Amino acid sequence: MPNAVVLGAGMVGSVMAADLVSDFEVVIADANPAALERAVARTGGRATKVIADLSDPQQVRDVVASADIVLGALASRVGFGVLRAVIEAGKNYVDISFMPENALELDALAKEHGVTAVVDCGVAPGMSNLLSAHSASRMDRCDSIEIYVGGLPVERRWPFEYKAGFAPSDVIEEYTRPARYVVDGEIVVKEALSEPELMDFEGVGTLEAFNTDGLRSLVDTLNVPDMKEKTLRYPGHIELMRVFRETGLFDQEPIEVPSGGRLVAVKPLDVIGKLMFPKWTYEDDEADLTVMRITVEGEIGGTGVRHTWDVLDYLDPDTGFTSMSRTTAFPCAIVARLVAGGELDTVGVLPPELFAKDRHTVDHILEVIPHGLRAAFADVGVGAGH
Amino acid sequence: MPNAVVLGAGMVGSVMAADLVSDFEVVIADANPAALERAVARTGGRATKVIADLSDPQQVRDVVASADIVLGALASRVGFGVLRAVIEAGKNYVDISFMPENALELDALAKEHGVTAVVDCGVAPGMSNLLSAHSASRMDRCDSIEIYVGGLPVERRWPFEYKAGFAPSDVIEEYTRPARYVVDGEIVVKEALSEPELMDFEGVGTLEAFNTDGLRSLVDTLNVPDMKEKTLRYPGHIELMRVFRETGLFDQEPIEVPSGGRLVAVKPLDVIGKLMFPKWTYEDDEADLTVMRITVEGEIGGTGVRHTWDVLDYLDPDTGFTSMSRTTAFPCAIVARLVAGGELDTVGVLPPELFAKDRHTVDHILEVIPHGLRAAFADVGVGAGH
Repeated sequence: MPNAVVLGAGMVGSVMAADLVSDFEVVIADANPAALERAVARTGGRATKVIADLSDPQQVRDVVASADIVLGALASRVGFGVLRAVIEAGKNYVDISFMPENALELDALAKEHGVTAVVDCGVAPGMSNLLSAHSASRMDRCDSIEIYVGGLPVERRWPFEYKAGFAPSDVIEEYTRPARYVVDGEIVVKEALSEPELMDFEGVGTLEAFNTDGLRSLVDTLNVPDMKEKTLRYPGHIELMRVFRETGLFDQEPIEVPSGGRLVAVKPLDVIGKLMFPKWTYEDDEADLTVMRITVEGEIGGTGVRHTWDVLDYLDPDTGFTSMSRTTAFPCAIVARLVAGGELDTVGVLPPELFAKDRHTVDHILEVIPHGLRAAFADVGVGAGH
Repeated sequence: MPNAVVLGAGMVGSVMAADLVSDFEVVIADANPAALERAVARTGGRATKVIADLSDPQQVRDVVASADIVLGALASRVGFGVLRAVIEAGKNYVDISFMPENALELDALAKEHGVTAVVDCGVAPGMSNLLSAHSASRMDRCDSIEIYVGGLPVERRWPFEYKAGFAPSDVIEEYTRPARYVVDGEIVVKEALSEPELMDFEGVGTLEAFNTDGLRSLVDTLNVPDMKEKTLRYPGHIELMRVFRETGLFDQEPIEVPSGGRLVAVKPLDVIGKLMFPKWTYEDDEADLTVMRITVEGEIGGTGVRHTWDVLDYLDPDTGFTSMSRTTAFPCAIVARLVAGGELDTVGVLPPELFAKDRHTVDHILEVIPHGLRAAFADVGVGAGH
């Protein structure tokens, strides 16, 4: 069997590994022995583990040395460095990290090493890029793309009514990073958490949508005059996050506070993280849900059309895999199989919209995607348009 | 002129000093040279200043050695120690500190030293004790006392819609200390910030009232079967404070966070205080208001009666004195004059309700209290009762 190396043994990486063990010899790498233990258990003991500090490029290169394909499921802050290291190792890579840097800056390096590196290949960014760009590519003219997406606990508990399906620090990153939009063909930067609006979702109820920097590469790769992406939470959460941010609790600039009779410099974000993140952590088997709505409007043959993609997915009680880990890990694993099998062989750094025009590839992804997800990712509406 | 020593050069102490300089040689003591400078300036340079660490009992005793009367305007955490030191120095004392300890425990010590020590002698606790107990004393039977009180900025600014008219740490103290109530003759302890209710106040609008430990000595000194005290804020503030408390931001138990490459132990309360308290600080000349409503119900001559005392007071633009500092400092200064003049000479630790039966004293206090306050402290209703 070919060899797949999964970087990161967290919620998402362990689901990737569990999905891949049927077709690959899987190695999981992480610095955290307890996380590795859990991830290997999730594969029924069929994956092997390697302890490695993946913030060190040399350790990344060592770990991927014998890989036929590498998958990335790491926190955003190490995402870019790992991407570069995997490219330098000459290995094909499919990654879901929400890195703040522009991955396309490494496109030339990937081409130089003959590497296919698919980035932002989870649910959103990921399926959101693929499906919106796919719809746009099927229109004669695409006028607008709207993406609404959120991962939420099924049970709402005061005060946050939220738990984090991935690294909580990356959630805060979403809440602070300025958000880029395309309005009338121009890139417009808006504050994160701004422009809250209430929206109803069948089966979920009313959610609150707000600006986050979720368009990412779409801003540069698609030529659509109006594009926006908003994150969804239960109503009220985002007001609390705005208050926390305003209070300075998300600041990374250290402040001086007393500790043992003297002053020490600490980052407010470290303090609020230590207090709040345990409250944002899912209990074992606690049900989550993923909701996403993509609306693409344009024209085909002179007629206005609207494509709508709706996702509503829940924790899988059979495997215990959370919805967020499934909807993130499965697209990445499917694309990794395409790359490993040579079916997707474009060299360079590729966000998913760059192979979205290829109807065959998209159809394949939608076909093999696990049942709960595929059923949801249906093209449900070709309507009257605007 | 007799000598008055004001302990504390903050917002309240400086107003006490400014009020007393017409009749007393005033000395202001504080550890903070800048605060002393400002306080002396407020007296038109007529007070003298002494730098002293008032958390040290010996320094308190030294500072008050030549006093005819001592006034206390200190943060709650040093209140009890200073009270004991002033009593031990054999000096009469009138104090407004919101100390967590039970001041009545020092009653025997005060009697032993022949000292009159009036405690909790601000607006609330203070005038609230005096007026509610005064009304109760005029009834054949008093059934209930309700006290609603708040100090607020006139302008409401997102997100807190609040600024602190006194030490912000004492505000958090109010938000965390369990609140004692009297229900059907029994003492009942309720969580701080609990039982929020919306109430309308003429001239202010709708406010939100919630449980705080404001009855204090009234629980022990008055024999009224139902007594409650609630704090008033603009609606929404208290929900934020409940979230902050739930998140652990008001905890005093240290947590470990990184600082310069190692872990240090810091109190979350120190961190949130450092971030939030600057936002809770009034700008120079920023208008505040004090709103208080006391409702006392009972029976006189077989008829149900209700006494209502309403206070609505604003920053004085002539002096720049905030409403909170005026409504706190003036009752204390008036009572200090009564004690210094020998008109109030009961020995022991006295919360104001203990001289509230004395109609002559109460009438005098209401008569000399500055106009804005006196007009507000009117007995407006003797109604149908319950």
